Amino acid sequence: ATTSGKTLTVGLIPADGIGREVIPAARQVLEALPSDIMPARLRFENLNAGFEYFQKHGVALPEETLVALKSECDGALFGAVSSPSHKVAGYSSPIVGLRKQMDLYANVRPVISSEASTASGKKRAIDMLIIRENTECLYIKDEKQYEDAGGKYAIAKRRISEHASQRIGDMAFSMALQRDGMRQLATAAERTWSGRPKVTIVHKSNVLSVTDGLWRETVRGVYEGNEKYRSRVDVEEQLVDSMVYRMFREPEAFDVVVAPNMYGDIISDGAAALVGSLGLVPSANVGDNFVVGEPVHGSAPDIAGKNIANPIAAIRSAAMLLERTGYDAAALAIYRAVDRVLADGTIRTPDLGGSSTTTEVVDAVCKQL
Amino acid sequence: ATTSGKTLTVGLIPADGIGREVIPAARQVLEALPSDIMPARLRFENLNAGFEYFQKHGVALPEETLVALKSECDGALFGAVSSPSHKVAGYSSPIVGLRKQMDLYANVRPVISSEASTASGKKRAIDMLIIRENTECLYIKDEKQYEDAGGKYAIAKRRISEHASQRIGDMAFSMALQRDGMRQLATAAERTWSGRPKVTIVHKSNVLSVTDGLWRETVRGVYEGNEKYRSRVDVEEQLVDSMVYRMFREPEAFDVVVAPNMYGDIISDGAAALVGSLGLVPSANVGDNFVVGEPVHGSAPDIAGKNIANPIAAIRSAAMLLERTGYDAAALAIYRAVDRVLADGTIRTPDLGGSSTTTEVVDAVCKQL
Ligand SMILES: CC(C)[C@H](C(=O)O)[C@@H](O)C(=O)O
Ligand SMILES: CC(C)[C@H](C(=O)O)[C@@H](O)C(=O)O
Repeated sequence: ATTSGKTLTVGLIPADGIGREVIPAARQVLEALPSDIMPARLRFENLNAGFEYFQKHGVALPEETLVALKSECDGALFGAVSSPSHKVAGYSSPIVGLRKQMDLYANVRPVISSEASTASGKKRAIDMLIIRENTECLYIKDEKQYEDAGGKYAIAKRRISEHASQRIGDMAFSMALQRDGMRQLATAAERTWSGRPKVTIVHKSNVLSVTDGLWRETVRGVYEGNEKYRSRVDVEEQLVDSMVYRMFREPEAFDVVVAPNMYGDIISDGAAALVGSLGLVPSANVGDNFVVGEPVHGSAPDIAGKNIANPIAAIRSAAMLLERTGYDAAALAIYRAVDRVLADGTIRTPDLGGSSTTTEVVDAVCKQL
Repeated sequence: ATTSGKTLTVGLIPADGIGREVIPAARQVLEALPSDIMPARLRFENLNAGFEYFQKHGVALPEETLVALKSECDGALFGAVSSPSHKVAGYSSPIVGLRKQMDLYANVRPVISSEASTASGKKRAIDMLIIRENTECLYIKDEKQYEDAGGKYAIAKRRISEHASQRIGDMAFSMALQRDGMRQLATAAERTWSGRPKVTIVHKSNVLSVTDGLWRETVRGVYEGNEKYRSRVDVEEQLVDSMVYRMFREPEAFDVVVAPNMYGDIISDGAAALVGSLGLVPSANVGDNFVVGEPVHGSAPDIAGKNIANPIAAIRSAAMLLERTGYDAAALAIYRAVDRVLADGTIRTPDLGGSSTTTEVVDAVCKQL
């Protein structure tokens, strides 16, 4: 795709806490990309959302933000959102709303480390891609409270549809193939996964035989109905509880992992623990026409405003945004710059045991570009 | 309580796979208890349940089993159940049914290790007690499939009640106090947790504000309404995704953890990864009048029938049964015998890197009694 002469407009939604530090950090790295690597001109739109915004204006995801994203932006970066410490009437998580409103149906989370500390006490190379369904499951937030003779009770609905399972299944298998293609280009030393590409389908159909039954059969159906997938990708299933167990014992056993929304949320935070810090793990919320990069970490109110938040997850999320919008070379340049800074090890924020500032990490990454 | 001269009748439900090896193993250890330590006479009732039983008889948890448990047994041991690899009409997990039918509303899972390998690469002592609500959440299995213009979809209901949250909350705080009492008796070297007792309430109320909102407020209410808890126990909250992350980074930060059913299922398998093998972690399904000991591991069809399954989780579950039925000294004798065998390290099943058989582990534990 020829993209030169174009403009890439990126919506910036820092939201709460350290989101306000790591999103500007990611922007700085994007702006530091040399023009031979990043042929498009970059434009940024600052947009509002978040719990703090809700507290001032009564809305967590303002309509103007959605309108700006849809009409003016090619993609966006979202920081992190604070969770109220008690129930707040009318408040609903803006990131969950954003995923739904923009139909960003997949949350893609690469978890990579050349030497992760596992719970088996052995160091292992991990190269896992977690693909989390992003629009349904318990995240439809269809909940109600009742009261009867036995007291109060509440019911939440968990929705699994054939449609959503199909498209996320398809994304999982096609990404497994795509990753395999990339691996063929890597040197043997760079490769951590040497087998055939594999997709692990996570579920709990031994309890949820209807909803997770539909999930598992639909994802399997995508595989069985596609000769390219069948002939080139392996498929396995894993109950979510065993998945968490195995992930900590032998994370090297996983390639692409596809999971319904809530399991995916839990698994990806767990996987982040393996690579040293939540501050390293990026994600992309992906739809057919839009992408929102989002660090996996939260708003970390305890360290907000101190210039010590790790910006790497946000910077890598910006690279994922570039990858999905067609700027592979620019994305690769960022990934490599970050890897070099990490490998060098002198500049590290406190979550990685260092004492560098957010600014110092950004400068170090920019210097490597 | 004076229990001498009594009979303790234990229902044995091996169910599937290695359940048929580890439950007889646990029975052997119970039978080897010297009479000065175990004053009651032991009687055993062999009872049916499981997926294999379902395949032959069309029912996974036969009525006779429930009747025998209710009318003749003081407690029971459950092995493990196989999960069908595809949807099977009329099949429903017997362990989930058993918990519900006998109103075993708490699943108690101690996770203990003097040197667990964490994902931060540091060895840590863990002494965590996971208390999982056992009767509701998504485990009510109220699910239905529908079809509309958009295709098939399915809805599962997740139920959280004030009543169930209250009694499990109460169990969590009272166990935190009880553990603290026990710690006062331990030597400094034996103690891993040195602070005030603490209960961590797990939820995801940033998404499920109604159901997990009710859960969290109810459990907090138990704490705030009880002066003894308030003055002697600390309380904190943890979102389930961060919980899994933190558990792998700093498991030493947790004492008692209380969680709704599904989160509890996932967390406890995760915690098991920290202590070396699922084959070590016991649990007790506890109600007001009955207890069912149950190893946390599954039926492991791949190693079933080979006499290599680790019987320690089942043996420890038998000790938990004794503890809950008033035979503390006998329980303690079993815990110590197991600890000695583990510390010695010569007799280990393959899951722990050894090559001993199930029988050899049982013999070693009995010899230590
Ligand atoms: C903030 C929260 C609603 C969100 C989620 O559960 O999806 C977060 O944990 C994430 O993973 O992006
Ligand atoms: C077998 C399965 C239904 C069960 C559960 O999910 O409760 C198991 O994983 C457990 O933890 O006891």
